Amino acid sequence: MRLRSTIDFLLYEWLRADALGERERFADHSRDTFDAVLDTCERIAREKYAPFNRTVDTQEPQFDGEKVILPRCTHDARQAYADSGMLSASQDYDIGGMQLPYTVEAAANSFFAAASISIGSNMLTSGNANAIMAHGTDMQKQVFAANEFNGRWAGTMCLSEPQAGSSLSDIATRAEPDGADFESDALGPRYRLKGNKMWISAGDHELTENIVHLVLAKIPGPDGKPVPGVKGISLFIVPKKLVDTEGQLTGERNDVALAGLNHKLGWRGTTNTLLNFGEGRFPVRGGAGAVGYLVGKPGEGLKCMFHMMNEARISIGMAATMLGMAGYHASLDYAQNRPQGRPIKGAPGAAGKDATRPQSRIIEHADVKRMLLAQKSYCEGALALNLFCARLVDEQHTGTPESVAEARLLLEVLTPISKSWPSEFCLEANSLAIQIHGGYGYTRDFPVEQYWRDNRLNMIHEGTHGIQAMDLLGRKVLMEGGKGLQLLATRINDTIQRAMARPELAGHANELAKALQEVGATTKAAWATDDPQQALANAVPYMQAFGHTVLAWTWLDVSLAVLDKDPGLTAPANAGRMAAMRYFFGYELPKIGAWLKVVRERDMTCAQMSEEAF
Amino acid sequence: MRLRSTIDFLLYEWLRADALGERERFADHSRDTFDAVLDTCERIAREKYAPFNRTVDTQEPQFDGEKVILPRCTHDARQAYADSGMLSASQDYDIGGMQLPYTVEAAANSFFAAASISIGSNMLTSGNANAIMAHGTDMQKQVFAANEFNGRWAGTMCLSEPQAGSSLSDIATRAEPDGADFESDALGPRYRLKGNKMWISAGDHELTENIVHLVLAKIPGPDGKPVPGVKGISLFIVPKKLVDTEGQLTGERNDVALAGLNHKLGWRGTTNTLLNFGEGRFPVRGGAGAVGYLVGKPGEGLKCMFHMMNEARISIGMAATMLGMAGYHASLDYAQNRPQGRPIKGAPGAAGKDATRPQSRIIEHADVKRMLLAQKSYCEGALALNLFCARLVDEQHTGTPESVAEARLLLEVLTPISKSWPSEFCLEANSLAIQIHGGYGYTRDFPVEQYWRDNRLNMIHEGTHGIQAMDLLGRKVLMEGGKGLQLLATRINDTIQRAMARPELAGHANELAKALQEVGATTKAAWATDDPQQALANAVPYMQAFGHTVLAWTWLDVSLAVLDKDPGLTAPANAGRMAAMRYFFGYELPKIGAWLKVVRERDMTCAQMSEEAF
Repeated sequence: MRLRSTIDFLLYEWLRADALGERERFADHSRDTFDAVLDTCERIAREKYAPFNRTVDTQEPQFDGEKVILPRCTHDARQAYADSGMLSASQDYDIGGMQLPYTVEAAANSFFAAASISIGSNMLTSGNANAIMAHGTDMQKQVFAANEFNGRWAGTMCLSEPQAGSSLSDIATRAEPDGADFESDALGPRYRLKGNKMWISAGDHELTENIVHLVLAKIPGPDGKPVPGVKGISLFIVPKKLVDTEGQLTGERNDVALAGLNHKLGWRGTTNTLLNFGEGRFPVRGGAGAVGYLVGKPGEGLKCMFHMMNEARISIGMAATMLGMAGYHASLDYAQNRPQGRPIKGAPGAAGKDATRPQSRIIEHADVKRMLLAQKSYCEGALALNLFCARLVDEQHTGTPESVAEARLLLEVLTPISKSWPSEFCLEANSLAIQIHGGYGYTRDFPVEQYWRDNRLNMIHEGTHGIQAMDLLGRKVLMEGGKGLQLLATRINDTIQRAMARPELAGHANELAKALQEVGATTKAAWATDDPQQALANAVPYMQAFGHTVLAWTWLDVSLAVLDKDPGLTAPANAGRMAAMRYFFGYELPKIGAWLKVVRERDMTCAQMSEEAF
Repeated sequence: MRLRSTIDFLLYEWLRADALGERERFADHSRDTFDAVLDTCERIAREKYAPFNRTVDTQEPQFDGEKVILPRCTHDARQAYADSGMLSASQDYDIGGMQLPYTVEAAANSFFAAASISIGSNMLTSGNANAIMAHGTDMQKQVFAANEFNGRWAGTMCLSEPQAGSSLSDIATRAEPDGADFESDALGPRYRLKGNKMWISAGDHELTENIVHLVLAKIPGPDGKPVPGVKGISLFIVPKKLVDTEGQLTGERNDVALAGLNHKLGWRGTTNTLLNFGEGRFPVRGGAGAVGYLVGKPGEGLKCMFHMMNEARISIGMAATMLGMAGYHASLDYAQNRPQGRPIKGAPGAAGKDATRPQSRIIEHADVKRMLLAQKSYCEGALALNLFCARLVDEQHTGTPESVAEARLLLEVLTPISKSWPSEFCLEANSLAIQIHGGYGYTRDFPVEQYWRDNRLNMIHEGTHGIQAMDLLGRKVLMEGGKGLQLLATRINDTIQRAMARPELAGHANELAKALQEVGATTKAAWATDDPQQALANAVPYMQAFGHTVLAWTWLDVSLAVLDKDPGLTAPANAGRMAAMRYFFGYELPKIGAWLKVVRERDMTCAQMSEEAF
């Protein structure tokens, strides 16, 4: 309920998502239909996800040699999600979609993430099918994507390999043409794949009739060797079980074998696998290797896969945010009900306690309030930023040519933040939620330790923190002559100008202007010697400062919407939003000074550290 | 080995611990005997602790209704530790001790903490027996303490209760005189105790023949009611099994019953229990309640228990430090062996990678070096600080009257830092160790996720972070007219003066002088209105800034020892120490600005947040 009212405020009062109904693609939609989707998702999350979050943590996936065994609740949750239609929420009506704005889809999915992040892996299925819709043939869309959207089959993304985690240019999986007629298969050019894929989420299970793997592999060049670098990488559909052009199982297993399950710190409801392609465990007639169908053009595999990158990274940011939010709400509830200690005695000069008074609830202690307000400012701020990015995705898809171009540029710059910032600071929020619980938070009788464990993944997958930072400072702020950064600065300045006119916000507007100026100057200073070694030596502190500045902007902009709606702050929730904004400006934004200092000075202390000296 | 050379440097080159052998109490000791102790502990930790760290994590303590079952390795590790004589390391020769300086004892124990923090709970046994030695009768020392030191029995500290975690004044366990002759028992004034104790580590097990509980309870006043506040609290020895004056079991069980085991996020090798005293499960003839013997005077229970507080808190700081160090060493090893990605291309203006070159080991990436150097500066800095505090404990016990007084004052101010700082920043080090491992770090196949889980406890037990911060800003910096803070400032200034004379350190000395000045001014500003509500509203950020300043001082002082020993930095380890110092000054110390700002401004954003607004 608390989450819903936050989402409602951000969607309707801040982002004016209801106005999307005026666009042609969303013409059948209005706040009513959006609300109906939110209601449904909130209900399914409450009934089918939340009660089983601990179950999927304790009953880890098991492989019995034949099949992967998951608890019953995982099957039920998956079915309820598929039945809701959310797998194809944003797809066209004519293939059974809802033509829902991505903004609303993202908001609706947040309920599931908060209730149980790992029980479902539906994001992978949607992302897989979306990639096929964008790059596949009509037949591939009809056979594979459509059967993922309708819930019959699930999807995966097979990128990493044991020897090449973040370094995709080094993947070694090979795809060779399957016979002389390989180009004439109705399902797409047919290849045989051999290789090992690591960290494949939902890589094997019995939740669905079939699993559609999207696999990156290299087609050998004329010399028979794989082309080095990312240019040699192509994308393939590799179904676990072979299918015909009607989308029926042929009865033949493809040569994709589960080599092992990873046993993780958290996020245990989703299997994470090592898959062997074409090792001969399930030989397919007519050749050796797993059968795969080329998607898009040879050599354009990464391009096809990365087409979905922004949405995938926003989803991870949203997952991190919702884990943070779940911890915030749990610790708020605990703080409101747990008595402990007494308020500080009013007597000046010493910090005594008055033992004759009854115990306070711990929410009455200033430091507990500080930990709650920090969580609120992190998690609600991150939610706002992620919904804003989702709104940009909609703009990119349905805006005017000019606004499309702007949305694309802003997303280039903001996506690394929307993914990295929540994964760092909403994890910190989870740690504060544990701290508020004291010893109880350290036990598995309370949910907060699991949120913390689950959330630790988000700085690692879909591009590690370090990779996001290199992307931001090494590419995004430079691209197209710095146009993305300039556009973001324009938008931030627009918010600053509007806030200047509000006495409650003018001081914060000034602080943000100063921060923006510092980020800009530091970006220039980082690249002043045009030496990437120096510029990027402190890319992560740069990203932290950049993120904090973006979040301060987000909070200031949200505050303008608060004051527009409720200038007297008569609703406690609006007073709370203003306090979270003030917390962020007072306690958090000043942290950028220390982060930017080393970037500005191009501090090489770390980069020049000799290995022997560690 | 890496840990040993760090310890050797800090003990002998920096703290000159060998000079302690010149003091009367340690006259039989020299670097040779200290080294022998370190050798033994390093070996036992390597052979009996480290190989089983994952075992105790996966084979959690089980209660079969009668007994607590622990894995075999826990019994073996406990036996090896007891056989080493470390339980009574610092005790007098005449009761079987080694008369070892606490500095060396703490250093030696660090090997066990790094190898497996939770397999042993020997610190509790030593602490318990030390408390009895300080406050007990001769008979109590002889019967209880001696049998803990020799390894026959184990000890616990029973402070918290389910309704009173951090708030000891609210404990409800009652102790009533046991019969008219209660004062004439040879083992001490005999009482009957009734109540529940929560979070009792090692509260039940079969590792030893008996368990000696030290229990805080309230003796009713003349009106039959417990005295409110901490003044009503007394300390009792409550053995699990009753014993006679010869230290033999009488065959009778005391009425102390295990009510439940807590299932924790980490630190799983040690049982953590809820104990019921005197509920009638094991009735003892002659009355109702568990039999307990008063230690010290009635009403002085907290005083007796807190006599050992400094050492207990330093131990927790050391535990946090060693978990961080274990993660640092694991991630360093991983980074030196894992190939991934390529160095940034030298070409100016763009951050490309050269795909034709072989993959680098990840330690060659600047951001990985940053994460390693951060860990090194956190963990080796924290180790230095904790050993320095341990050295102050020795000074307090064996110094001149003047140096005793100074050591006491410094410990008052530094102990909250030595406990809180490692528990926060060496936890952050563990997170960085996971990050360096990438996906592998998120699996239970590598040790780093366990270090991170284990370490999360340290901000909670032995006084939470918030309580340490209130203690520091609300009590320690004010006490005796601010003498402790002034003395610390004098010591820091002494280091600054010496560093000013070194060209390599003069800049850092200036930065530290500025930081010290800021901390001092902020302390005054916090209390400028003499209103504890305002002063303490931001006690945790104050403690963070105070801690960072103390750590910067520690690193600067260590650097002076480095340059004294090896001015040309010919040894890579010494170059590494200097780099860790430069990292701390460049990347960390500037963070104090943001923390001190809210304290200086007495920012009440959090404290004044209304509950409804969350």
